[in-house]
Amino acid sequence: MNKEPGTAILLIHCPDRRGLVLAVTGFIQKHNGNIIRLDEVVDAESRTFFMRVEWELDGFTLAPGEIGKAFDSDVAGPLGMNRELHFSAETARMAIFVSRLPHCLHDLLGRAQSGEWKVEIPLIVSNHPDLEPVAAGFGIPFHHFPIRPDNKTAQEQKELELLRQNRVGLVVLARYMQILSSAFTAAYPNRIINIHHSFLPAFPGAKPYHSAYQRGVKIIGASSHYVSAELDQGPIIEQDVEKLNYKDQVPDLIRKGRDLEKLVLSRAVWFHLQHRILVYRNRTLVFA
Amino acid sequence: MNKEPGTAILLIHCPDRRGLVLAVTGFIQKHNGNIIRLDEVVDAESRTFFMRVEWELDGFTLAPGEIGKAFDSDVAGPLGMNRELHFSAETARMAIFVSRLPHCLHDLLGRAQSGEWKVEIPLIVSNHPDLEPVAAGFGIPFHHFPIRPDNKTAQEQKELELLRQNRVGLVVLARYMQILSSAFTAAYPNRIINIHHSFLPAFPGAKPYHSAYQRGVKIIGASSHYVSAELDQGPIIEQDVEKLNYKDQVPDLIRKGRDLEKLVLSRAVWFHLQHRILVYRNRTLVFA
Amino acid sequence: MNKEPGTAILLIHCPDRRGLVLAVTGFIQKHNGNIIRLDEVVDAESRTFFMRVEWELDGFTLAPGEIGKAFDSDVAGPLGMNRELHFSAETARMAIFVSRLPHCLHDLLGRAQSGEWKVEIPLIVSNHPDLEPVAAGFGIPFHHFPIRPDNKTAQEQKELELLRQNRVGLVVLARYMQILSSAFTAAYPNRIINIHHSFLPAFPGAKPYHSAYQRGVKIIGASSHYVSAELDQGPIIEQDVEKLNYKDQVPDLIRKGRDLEKLVLSRAVWFHLQHRILVYRNRTLVFA
Amino acid sequence: MNKEPGTAILLIHCPDRRGLVLAVTGFIQKHNGNIIRLDEVVDAESRTFFMRVEWELDGFTLAPGEIGKAFDSDVAGPLGMNRELHFSAETARMAIFVSRLPHCLHDLLGRAQSGEWKVEIPLIVSNHPDLEPVAAGFGIPFHHFPIRPDNKTAQEQKELELLRQNRVGLVVLARYMQILSSAFTAAYPNRIINIHHSFLPAFPGAKPYHSAYQRGVKIIGASSHYVSAELDQGPIIEQDVEKLNYKDQVPDLIRKGRDLEKLVLSRAVWFHLQHRILVYRNRTLVFA
Repeated sequence: MNKEPGTAILLIHCPDRRGLVLAVTGFIQKHNGNIIRLDEVVDAESRTFFMRVEWELDGFTLAPGEIGKAFDSDVAGPLGMNRELHFSAETARMAIFVSRLPHCLHDLLGRAQSGEWKVEIPLIVSNHPDLEPVAAGFGIPFHHFPIRPDNKTAQEQKELELLRQNRVGLVVLARYMQILSSAFTAAYPNRIINIHHSFLPAFPGAKPYHSAYQRGVKIIGASSHYVSAELDQGPIIEQDVEKLNYKDQVPDLIRKGRDLEKLVLSRAVWFHLQHRILVYRNRTLVFA
Repeated sequence: MNKEPGTAILLIHCPDRRGLVLAVTGFIQKHNGNIIRLDEVVDAESRTFFMRVEWELDGFTLAPGEIGKAFDSDVAGPLGMNRELHFSAETARMAIFVSRLPHCLHDLLGRAQSGEWKVEIPLIVSNHPDLEPVAAGFGIPFHHFPIRPDNKTAQEQKELELLRQNRVGLVVLARYMQILSSAFTAAYPNRIINIHHSFLPAFPGAKPYHSAYQRGVKIIGASSHYVSAELDQGPIIEQDVEKLNYKDQVPDLIRKGRDLEKLVLSRAVWFHLQHRILVYRNRTLVFA
Repeated sequence: MNKEPGTAILLIHCPDRRGLVLAVTGFIQKHNGNIIRLDEVVDAESRTFFMRVEWELDGFTLAPGEIGKAFDSDVAGPLGMNRELHFSAETARMAIFVSRLPHCLHDLLGRAQSGEWKVEIPLIVSNHPDLEPVAAGFGIPFHHFPIRPDNKTAQEQKELELLRQNRVGLVVLARYMQILSSAFTAAYPNRIINIHHSFLPAFPGAKPYHSAYQRGVKIIGASSHYVSAELDQGPIIEQDVEKLNYKDQVPDLIRKGRDLEKLVLSRAVWFHLQHRILVYRNRTLVFA
Repeated sequence: MNKEPGTAILLIHCPDRRGLVLAVTGFIQKHNGNIIRLDEVVDAESRTFFMRVEWELDGFTLAPGEIGKAFDSDVAGPLGMNRELHFSAETARMAIFVSRLPHCLHDLLGRAQSGEWKVEIPLIVSNHPDLEPVAAGFGIPFHHFPIRPDNKTAQEQKELELLRQNRVGLVVLARYMQILSSAFTAAYPNRIINIHHSFLPAFPGAKPYHSAYQRGVKIIGASSHYVSAELDQGPIIEQDVEKLNYKDQVPDLIRKGRDLEKLVLSRAVWFHLQHRILVYRNRTLVFA
C-alpha cells in the first residue's frame, strides 16, 4: 500500500428493491467517506441492480481491512447484495503470457515501465523462446514452458505454481496461442484477460483475419474478454473496430488488426486495474 | 401528462461535500421512490458535485407538483444545491427553424412522426419559403418570416410571440442560416439547440467545409450546442466525425457532413428530451 | 438522359496480366476521353485485376450507345475482361420494400425528394398497410401485397410484374420483414439491397439486438448487402458500428441501431447509384 | 537494397490534361512492368491531376537507377509533371526526437524492433536525459542535446550534422517539446513528422487537452503532420479521435490522448515509409 489512503471501490449487484443506494451511501456517510463517483443502473427486464461507488478513504473511520466485514454485516448481508471491494492504493501483480507475436507484449511492457499503469509484472510466460529478448530489454524474468499434448497438464501445473509464488492476481494473454485447460482457467476466474483478433461473436477460433477477408466484411475488430472454460465465449470486456477499404488484403487486415489488438487489450487491462468491471451472467458492465 | 406515472429526474450541481448523495437518495426513499438510474461524479479540480438521478413515480407519496418544493426545502436549500426537476411523462413542445436545406428537417420530422420521440411540433419557422412543401407533407404549420437588417428585430418579436402562443419549450435550429439576436437567445436559455457543420472549435462561422478542405484535415465533424449570445460559442452537447479519403473534395465533404449533421443534431435533441444534459459554466455534462 | 453528357464508368475484373491499365486508358484516349478518376488494384493472392475508371464524355468521339460494343471488341474481348459500363447521366429507378418500421423509408424518401440522390422512386411495396401515410406524404404510389405461405409465390409474381412495368432497376429492402424467394432474388442479381441490423456475420436472422445484448457485445453494427438466395449471406456492401455503454439495454440498442441502419443502407444505395460497387465471388469492392 | 527487386512507386501531380494516365502506364508497359496498384484523381475545381502508381520490378527492363531519368525525358518533362520516385526495396533510416514522454517512443521502437516496419533507427535525439534507459533497452544510441535560448542554433547544427553522418532520411518528433528553427525544418522539407495532441486546427500550441476540457468538446483528437516553418501549420497526414464521456476530466483526456498519439503518429510514419503521401500546397493526399 501507498502512504496515500486513496479510494475504496465497491462493485455491487443484486435483485432490485427500494433503498439500495441509500443503504450503501448511508454506510459510507456513517463512517465519514466522501463519494467521488457513483454509477447505478437497474436492468429493466430482469430488475437487477448494478452499482459501482468510489469514495475517498482520507478521514474514513474504518481501516481498509475492516470495511468488508462491516459492510457485509450492516448492508450486503441484510439486503442480499453480491459485492466486491477494492482499494486504489493496492498495486496489482500481473503475469503476461505470450507466444511469438510481440506487439501486445511491447505495448503492455511500455505502459508498465512508463508508470502509465500502477502494476507490477513479476514474470512473463511463453510456450516459445522467441520473445525472451523483449523481456530482457524490459528487465522482466521470462519463463519458457513448451507445451505439447503429452506435457500440457504438467506444464500448466508448473505455471500455476509459479503464479502463486509470485502472488499474481491477473493473467494477461497477449496473443498467447495455446488454449488453457479448464483446470487452469478455474484457478483464475474473471482474472485472465485474453485478446481475440475478431469482432466476437464473429470469427471465433483460428485465422479470423483470413475468414473476415473471405466473407468480405468492411470492418474488422478485436475483442478482449475474461477467459472461461469455453473458447472465445467468456464475458467480453472491450471491443473496437477499424474500417477497411477495397485495397485492403489479408496482410492489411493483420496490420490494422495489430493496432486494434494492442488498444483493446490494454483498455481491458486498464478497466480491470481500475476495478471498473462487474461480471454478471457471462456479461460485463464496464463503468468506463 | 400520460396515464402512466413514469419517472422523475433530478439534475443537480453544487460544491462538493460529504453526504450529498445520501441526502438526495434519502429524500427519494422517504417518499417511497425506486431509483432506476443514478450517475454522480465530482470534478477533481474544482471539487464540484454533479448528479443525475431518475426514479419511478409509481408508488411515490408526493404528487409531481409537490416534489420540487419539498426537495428544495428539505435538501437543495439546506445543502446549497442547484437543481432541475423533470418528468418523463411530459411531452415536449418543439419548434423547428429552417432555411433552405431540408436534410435535418426531414430527419427531425421523421423521428417525431414515427413516435421515435415523445414530442409535439406545433410549428416550423423559416426565413425562406422553400421548405413549406416538406412541412405540408408532414402536416405541420409553416411560418415564413423573411429577415432583413431593417426588420430583424420586429420579425424576431413576432416569432417569439408565436412560440409563446404555442407553448414551445425547445427551439431547434435545423441548419437555420440566420444569427439570432441576443434578445432572442436570452428568451430561451439552454433551450435553443443549433447544429454547426464543423468540429468546433475548429472552423466556426461560415463555409466550414470549404475551410476544412483548404486546411487539408483528414476528418470532418459536426457539433450541436445550446445557442448563447456569442456565435458558435455556446455549450457543446454532442459531436461526431467522419473520415475523409484522398478523393474527397468539397462536394464530398458536404455530402458526408449532411449525414453527420442529422445524427449529431438529433442526438442532442434526444438527450435534451430525456433530460440528460446538465449545463455548468458553458460546458455540458451529458449523462448518455 | 440529361442535356449534360456527364461521365462514363467502367468496372472491370479479370485475371491479372501486363498491359491491362494501358489497354483501357488507351481506348479512352483514342476516343478523346478525359479520365477524372481511376482506381486499380491487383489481389496479391489470386492475381486478379480490379479497376474502376470514370471519364468525361464531353468531347468523347463515341456516342454512349456505341461505347460498350467498341470496348468489348477492342479491349475486353481480346484481354478476357469482365466489365460493366454505366453513365452518370442516367437516372436510376428504384423501388422500396417496407413492412412496419418507417425510419429507413423516411430517410430514403427524404434523400430522393431533396435531390440529394439522382433517383426516381416510382413505387413502394409493402406486406403491411401501416406505412401508406408516409408514402402519401411524399406523393409516392404505395402497393400493399400481404404475404402468406399460400399466396407468397403468386404475390411475388405480381410484385415482379409491377417492377417490370415501372422499369425498376434497383430494389431496396428498407427493413422489409419477409424473406424473398430465390425466384425473386434471381430476377434482380446484385440489384436488391437489404439492410440487416447486425454486424454480419455476427447475429444473422431474427432479433439480432436481443442476441447482441445477451452476448454482451460492446459495439453494435448494421450491414447492407446485396440479396442472394441464402439469407443474410449475400455480398456485404457497407457496415458501420456504434459503441454501447453499461447502461444500454435492448431498447437502447434498438434506438442506436435505427440510426446505424439508416446510414448504412443509404450509403450502400449511394454507392450503387454511383456505380462504385464491383461484385466478385460474393465479395464487393467498393471504390469509395 | 534487398535481393528481391520489389516495386517502384511514382507519385505525380500536374495540371490535368488528356492522356496523362496513358503516358505513365505506357512507359511502364514499354519496359515490361506490371502495375499492382494505381490511384488517380483529378481535383474538380483546380483541374489538378494526382496519381500514385506502383509496379513490380521483376522483369522490368530498366535498372532502378535508370528509371527516373528515362521517365523524366520520356514522360514527366514533355507533359509538365512533378514526380517523386521510390523503391519498396529501400530501407528508410529514421531518427527519433523525444523529450520526456515515452509512449510514442516505445511504440515506434517496438514496431521497428519487431520488423513490423522496414526501417533502421540509427539514433535517438533528446533535449532531456530521461529516456536514455528506454533507448538502451532497445539498443539504440541516445544523444542528449540540452536546448537553451543561447545554444539552440549551435545545438541544432550539431543535430543536423549527426543526422547527415547517419544518413537519416526521416525525422520523427515523438512528443518532442521543442520548436525546431526554420533553418532546421528547411533541411528536411516534408521529411519531419510531428504528432500534435489535438484535432488540428483546433487547439494548436501548448496544453491542448486542458483547452479541450475547458471548451467542453465531446471528442478529442490527435494530428500528425509534416513540420513546416509555422508551428502546427504544416500539411496534415493523419488524424484520429476518441469520444469522451461526462466523467472524463483532464487526466482522462491525457490518458485517452496518449493512445491516439501513438496510433496517429505511427500511421503517418507508415504512410511515409510506404510512399503513400503526396504533398501539394500544404495539403496531403494519402493513398491509404
